[in-house]
Amino acid sequence: MAAKYIYAFGGGTADGRGDQKELLGGKGAGLAEMSRLGIPVPPGFTLTTEVCTWFQEHHGGYPAGLEQELERHLRQLEALTGQRFGDAANPLLVSVRSGAPMSMPGMMDTVLNLGLSQELVDAWIARGTDARFVLDAWRRLLTMYGDVVLGVEHARFEEVLAAARAEHRAASDNELPPAALAAVADRFKRLIAEHGRPFPETPREQLWGAIGAVFASWDNRRAREYRRINGISERLGTAVNVQAMVFGNRGADCATGVAFTRNPATGEARVYGEYLVNAQGEDVVAGIRTPRPIVGADGGRGLAEDFPQADRELREVCARLERHYRDMQDVEFTIQHDRLYMLQTRGGKRTGPAAVRIAAELADEGIITPREAVARVKPQDLVQVLAPEFDVKEKARAVAAGRLLAHGLPAGPGAASGRMVLSADRAAELAAQGPVILVRAETSPEDIVGMHAAAGILTSRGGMTSHAAVVARGMGKPCLVGAGDLDVDERARVVRAGGRVLHEDEEISIDGTTGEVIAGGLATRPSEVLRTLIGDEGAGAAANASPAVATFRKILEWADEVRRLRVRANADTPGDARVAGALGAEGIGLCRTEHMFFEEDRIPWVRRMILADDAAERAEALAKLLPMQEQDFEGIFAALSGLPVTVRLLDPPLHEFLPHGDKALAGLAKQMGVPAAKVATRAAALAEANPMLGHRGCRLGLTAPEIYEMQVEAITRAACVRTRAGDHVEAEIMVPLVGAEQEMIRLRQMVAATVERVLGEEKVRLPIAIGTMIEVPRAALIADKIAAHADFFSFGTNDLTQMTYGYSRDDVGRFLPQYLESGVLPYDPFARLDDEGVGQLVSLACERGRRVRPDLHLGICGEHGGDPNSVEFCHMIGLDYVSCSPYRVPVARLAAAQAALSGEEKDK
Amino acid sequence: MAAKYIYAFGGGTADGRGDQKELLGGKGAGLAEMSRLGIPVPPGFTLTTEVCTWFQEHHGGYPAGLEQELERHLRQLEALTGQRFGDAANPLLVSVRSGAPMSMPGMMDTVLNLGLSQELVDAWIARGTDARFVLDAWRRLLTMYGDVVLGVEHARFEEVLAAARAEHRAASDNELPPAALAAVADRFKRLIAEHGRPFPETPREQLWGAIGAVFASWDNRRAREYRRINGISERLGTAVNVQAMVFGNRGADCATGVAFTRNPATGEARVYGEYLVNAQGEDVVAGIRTPRPIVGADGGRGLAEDFPQADRELREVCARLERHYRDMQDVEFTIQHDRLYMLQTRGGKRTGPAAVRIAAELADEGIITPREAVARVKPQDLVQVLAPEFDVKEKARAVAAGRLLAHGLPAGPGAASGRMVLSADRAAELAAQGPVILVRAETSPEDIVGMHAAAGILTSRGGMTSHAAVVARGMGKPCLVGAGDLDVDERARVVRAGGRVLHEDEEISIDGTTGEVIAGGLATRPSEVLRTLIGDEGAGAAANASPAVATFRKILEWADEVRRLRVRANADTPGDARVAGALGAEGIGLCRTEHMFFEEDRIPWVRRMILADDAAERAEALAKLLPMQEQDFEGIFAALSGLPVTVRLLDPPLHEFLPHGDKALAGLAKQMGVPAAKVATRAAALAEANPMLGHRGCRLGLTAPEIYEMQVEAITRAACVRTRAGDHVEAEIMVPLVGAEQEMIRLRQMVAATVERVLGEEKVRLPIAIGTMIEVPRAALIADKIAAHADFFSFGTNDLTQMTYGYSRDDVGRFLPQYLESGVLPYDPFARLDDEGVGQLVSLACERGRRVRPDLHLGICGEHGGDPNSVEFCHMIGLDYVSCSPYRVPVARLAAAQAALSGEEKDK
Repeated sequence: MAAKYIYAFGGGTADGRGDQKELLGGKGAGLAEMSRLGIPVPPGFTLTTEVCTWFQEHHGGYPAGLEQELERHLRQLEALTGQRFGDAANPLLVSVRSGAPMSMPGMMDTVLNLGLSQELVDAWIARGTDARFVLDAWRRLLTMYGDVVLGVEHARFEEVLAAARAEHRAASDNELPPAALAAVADRFKRLIAEHGRPFPETPREQLWGAIGAVFASWDNRRAREYRRINGISERLGTAVNVQAMVFGNRGADCATGVAFTRNPATGEARVYGEYLVNAQGEDVVAGIRTPRPIVGADGGRGLAEDFPQADRELREVCARLERHYRDMQDVEFTIQHDRLYMLQTRGGKRTGPAAVRIAAELADEGIITPREAVARVKPQDLVQVLAPEFDVKEKARAVAAGRLLAHGLPAGPGAASGRMVLSADRAAELAAQGPVILVRAETSPEDIVGMHAAAGILTSRGGMTSHAAVVARGMGKPCLVGAGDLDVDERARVVRAGGRVLHEDEEISIDGTTGEVIAGGLATRPSEVLRTLIGDEGAGAAANASPAVATFRKILEWADEVRRLRVRANADTPGDARVAGALGAEGIGLCRTEHMFFEEDRIPWVRRMILADDAAERAEALAKLLPMQEQDFEGIFAALSGLPVTVRLLDPPLHEFLPHGDKALAGLAKQMGVPAAKVATRAAALAEANPMLGHRGCRLGLTAPEIYEMQVEAITRAACVRTRAGDHVEAEIMVPLVGAEQEMIRLRQMVAATVERVLGEEKVRLPIAIGTMIEVPRAALIADKIAAHADFFSFGTNDLTQMTYGYSRDDVGRFLPQYLESGVLPYDPFARLDDEGVGQLVSLACERGRRVRPDLHLGICGEHGGDPNSVEFCHMIGLDYVSCSPYRVPVARLAAAQAALSGEEKDK
Repeated sequence: MAAKYIYAFGGGTADGRGDQKELLGGKGAGLAEMSRLGIPVPPGFTLTTEVCTWFQEHHGGYPAGLEQELERHLRQLEALTGQRFGDAANPLLVSVRSGAPMSMPGMMDTVLNLGLSQELVDAWIARGTDARFVLDAWRRLLTMYGDVVLGVEHARFEEVLAAARAEHRAASDNELPPAALAAVADRFKRLIAEHGRPFPETPREQLWGAIGAVFASWDNRRAREYRRINGISERLGTAVNVQAMVFGNRGADCATGVAFTRNPATGEARVYGEYLVNAQGEDVVAGIRTPRPIVGADGGRGLAEDFPQADRELREVCARLERHYRDMQDVEFTIQHDRLYMLQTRGGKRTGPAAVRIAAELADEGIITPREAVARVKPQDLVQVLAPEFDVKEKARAVAAGRLLAHGLPAGPGAASGRMVLSADRAAELAAQGPVILVRAETSPEDIVGMHAAAGILTSRGGMTSHAAVVARGMGKPCLVGAGDLDVDERARVVRAGGRVLHEDEEISIDGTTGEVIAGGLATRPSEVLRTLIGDEGAGAAANASPAVATFRKILEWADEVRRLRVRANADTPGDARVAGALGAEGIGLCRTEHMFFEEDRIPWVRRMILADDAAERAEALAKLLPMQEQDFEGIFAALSGLPVTVRLLDPPLHEFLPHGDKALAGLAKQMGVPAAKVATRAAALAEANPMLGHRGCRLGLTAPEIYEMQVEAITRAACVRTRAGDHVEAEIMVPLVGAEQEMIRLRQMVAATVERVLGEEKVRLPIAIGTMIEVPRAALIADKIAAHADFFSFGTNDLTQMTYGYSRDDVGRFLPQYLESGVLPYDPFARLDDEGVGQLVSLACERGRRVRPDLHLGICGEHGGDPNSVEFCHMIGLDYVSCSPYRVPVARLAAAQAALSGEEKDK
């Protein structure tokens, strides 16, 4: 049997089917499927993607027999419509549209009204057809054909039209008199001829020209670029759809429109869209006239009022399409003399909140299963649902007004406006008076209180996992980092951007979802779902949940039923722990004790410990810190009774706890009543060339064991107190930065001895697990040796990424943006776990660790714990849990479920 | 058959053999072997190390039957000697000595004259035996037994003796009259009784006491410490040798001495040693009297003059032992009434230069094979040979200036200057701050840690075989002993010499090759061998090579015949390249271009490039640097014609080329005529939190490609120039810090394009290899991907170690010393390649790289390339070459040969 290159559709039947997207393209498959379903579709036929492939491989040639096959289909189409190509009595006009298997901007798109010629126009009008309609169709064909097939710049046609409108004082093209349209068409033809080839006056020549243009556009620069970025195969090709025209511009009983079967912004389950009376399809999309909503706002006119019959039909068709495609659809339609024709159907794009609601409600309606609903919601959808937001229109107005200052990396989603402050102290000071945005070149642990106080954080340096980014995400705050166009002059208290100078205290807005920095304020609010989940709305609101909240909950409950991977949160305070619990965390995977050290009542004692002259002085300082740490742990254990809490012993180098700069050190000396020289000397002695690779983590634990002993005592005592109070405490003590077997052996021994001592003193029996972070490449390489002395591993993939790549995340802003832009790296390895390199170490460590200790508990606590791709990797290699910032817990729950589902899929 | 716990020797036969060191200990095996060879050895027997193990495991108990077995051997010994235990007519006296399988300072060593009692002493004298001899033997037994068996402090006995000498105005103990000795002995017995247990008067009780003390001393603190430092197994145990006494102190025809079969300092092939007339063995080692050299210096008396017959016999015995053991021997002997008895033989410790010469000459003499000679020389021996010596002119000036303090015996060759410290503890304490010279009256096993820490050792007492001399030689440290003119006052913390007083902490210099002690520091110059090899001595000197030079060359030539691994050098300048070539480098493995950047005429242009405002200014600065770099490369290529030269493109971050500190930056601004603020801003913009993990290496190459392009052009042009000049240039261009496949792909492309362009311009055809350094853990993990685009890998194990451990080399001093001391790490991974972790990455990268590209050339260019253990690892995993600093090239050549030999050994 000869190859079949053309598939007909229309008249309640079709050669192709909806599942033949690869062959027929999305549009062609949709038309075929609608036709089979008996939905009114203007008839036509589809040249398959195989023709495109042939065309590409033969430098613009076509397979033998294609012309005859096309002629056959044309005759069939004429028979079906009762019209004929070039017949002035009843001319067949067609549209020619591209239709790739995936939506592909950049390709030649549409030519309408193909089949007209000067002769036919004249003859048709002469036979009494409305001259305005015919000439409007004619000038549209000339424009579209001239533009997309013959390469005449679209603007040149617009100039001619504009001149005509001016001449005739017409507000829109619709008001041009037929004579003017005829003159415009003449000028269009001249324009085309001057550009090169004249407009082809025979329908067949037009048709082949348009088909060739579509196939050729597959290989244009923009399309290739788009495929490269989106990872679409070059071999797919596009189909071409040739379809009989129906006209939405043939009078007041005609219209054209687009619709979504559900609201794409909110997900609400009713048809949503807009239409134009007496217009052709392109007018809706082009935004030349303002269309009317299908459901009239506030009782205004809508489709039901304008076209009651077509409106009923459209609703039926939408419901059928949704049930048939089992998803919300995005459709195009035309009404010709009150009759509805469907021109396209495809899956509709939607916002995050809509995606959640639609998935949940489709499942509730029985159209899809709950598992499918879980698989359909993108993790980013949940992020959107949880992020505070700017009003989009207001933001657009601000950008139009020239208030856009810079772009940065969107490190913490959400929107924030407030007074700009350039120091953490000032942030803390002014926060009570209203929201502030902390703007710094970069942040450091000293800034933590100010960051807490700020409504949003903006830095000119650093990447997606810089201190600012990590802390901000941990706090669920909007954050932009690496906004390199900003010059943050902390001394002059100004920020410069382009030619602008913003002074401290001026208002500024940052959109952490999109990356824009905008001068002046913009209104924001936390998302409704988040407010409800963490209980700010009160119990009543929670019970009476809105559809957004209810469907969000539902999706996550279904996700929980599916996933194997547990989800914990990284939380350092009782407050964080409570938020984590409210968002579904099943424990704390990383509680960083150093953050506690920075609190106002503690840092003096931490510094006193660092500056201590002798063991006694140091012991005194530690004794002061002990009850404070103990209280923190009590709070955390109480907030997560029954759930595991992994506490990491002190990790950063001691110099991080001293203030920076000579002046600040002198101030500290004065405050502590010690000679300035002593503080300066000690600070200098502690300074490091590469603090990231310095005297920190367990290296500190081994060389200054009294700090760890204090911390272990605080953890154990707190566990005893809460146990006596009736909580079920599951404490796990984590030793950071282990890289040698002996480090683990000795610290395990030390920790265990202290735990035993305190349990003995408190007379409580309680199992406390002791494990380590795997964050140094060597630890992964000798994981079998380390596992012999560890109850659990938690992969600290932030540091592991730094060391495996040799990238300092504080400095990576110098080259990483360029690396990502130019494709040296496919993605930011601090945002997404590098499964090729870092992941290789993680998976090797799991395997070696479990070989020695099959019950070894394995988790990940880097920033990657909240990244869906990374979560999938963690699922695949068999980790027990991921731990991420509290606000990412819902994302991780969903990602874990999707990983499980896609795992099942692969196992089939 | 019952276990055999005791092995007899003597009378020309023996139960044991020389290869039973594990069972009989070194001393016992030596005695058995000598006995079998018919060499005169006083008869005796050895309790095996198995008895020791039993003793340790049974808390001081002995296996059943041991007592009977010992009685049987005692009777046999009595029969053989014709003497009897406790028989006043002809008493059997014995020595009891420990003898572990490895030499072990810190253990109970020797008790002589065992078998005497008050009753026997009286009776023996009564029977006409020389009272002075008998009483001298008696007081020695009491001292040794009291000290080592009963734990009475040695100094207490000394005090009694000193009092007696004072009372009798005797200069030495020898001058004490018999009555005085009798009184001393009485006082000794009281001293012992007061301390605890009285001295046991029966020979058997004495014998069992001494045996138990030896076994118990295996487990004392010092011995354990020694075993830990030297990696000796705790399970080995020590043997005990019980041997009939012969007396070197029975008159003027008696003597005792120690000898080496060759000179242990220079390796010269003649018997070398010292002896004391009318003395017991301990006197030689203790350094109480200054012994006489066996070969009299400058025609003075020697053994040939004092004891012609015994001297002849000793030479014969030495020659036989050397041929038998196939190595230089360290022997102890006693002459009793002109008859020679050998008491011990063992492999002799020697200096580095001696080791080289002895090995080469033994091979020349046909005693060992050249391969054995290569296997015997320790890499550290070569280091000693190459170690700098004092500049002779400066030393002459110092002597002329009256700074010569004393002469001593040159016990350990080499030159050292440093702060004078008078205790081992202080040496250990201060060594980290700079070199220290440990100065003591004499050293003891307790000083071992301080000796390790010291740069050199100086004693005022003792001979060439004293504790200080032996240990220092073992450690390869410069050492002077017996500098009798020095008064070392450890209490006052001063050293007096002539009229001068030197205080602790003042600087002092010792020449362990020539024997001079000089006040103050002295500059050093290259050693004779090094001067000859690198041609500073002129061609004449090289042709007329000294034995030291000739044997050094010979060993390395033999090594070259054996090794598979090639040895290259790391050299950045033509001068370094020439040195490397002279020392046998087979190419340059690492030529760091940044070192060139620091030269005075270049750094301004480097800085101008960094501070450039625009591309044009930057290009101008690079254009200035280009010819300078080209010239460097020409010099290097010329120096190594025919050998490969691997040039690494710029590696460090740019801020390393700017001066540090505000003031220096301001100075730079002034000098360059640009605003200070601009320089400050640029420096601040370049500053990094962790420069080690920052914007450097190929990251710089990709973001500022013009620098690499300039360098590649300079390399290629230089290669063309030298090729035209007739050199055979083998240039290899190395891209540093690659961690992602795309980095390698793009930089290879860029480098290749520049090479092609320049070759085209120069009209020269020349293959230039392009490869990369593997120094980022991720590079090792994805080595297969990188290998697809690289002609070679060079492992940069310095950085690889930093990143794999997460240790910053600049900061590791904070904890690494403590880690090493407490055994958290077994060795410094920056000195010796960590085969467990870092090595795992290296070996994995080799395997994956070669899988993709079987001809991939593999080398190592970190500091580890000159470390013998690391070289062995490199051999084992199949690298093609190691590259090390030029002065380590001979060490690497030897280590590579030894790795090949030990590989063959394992394959057998």
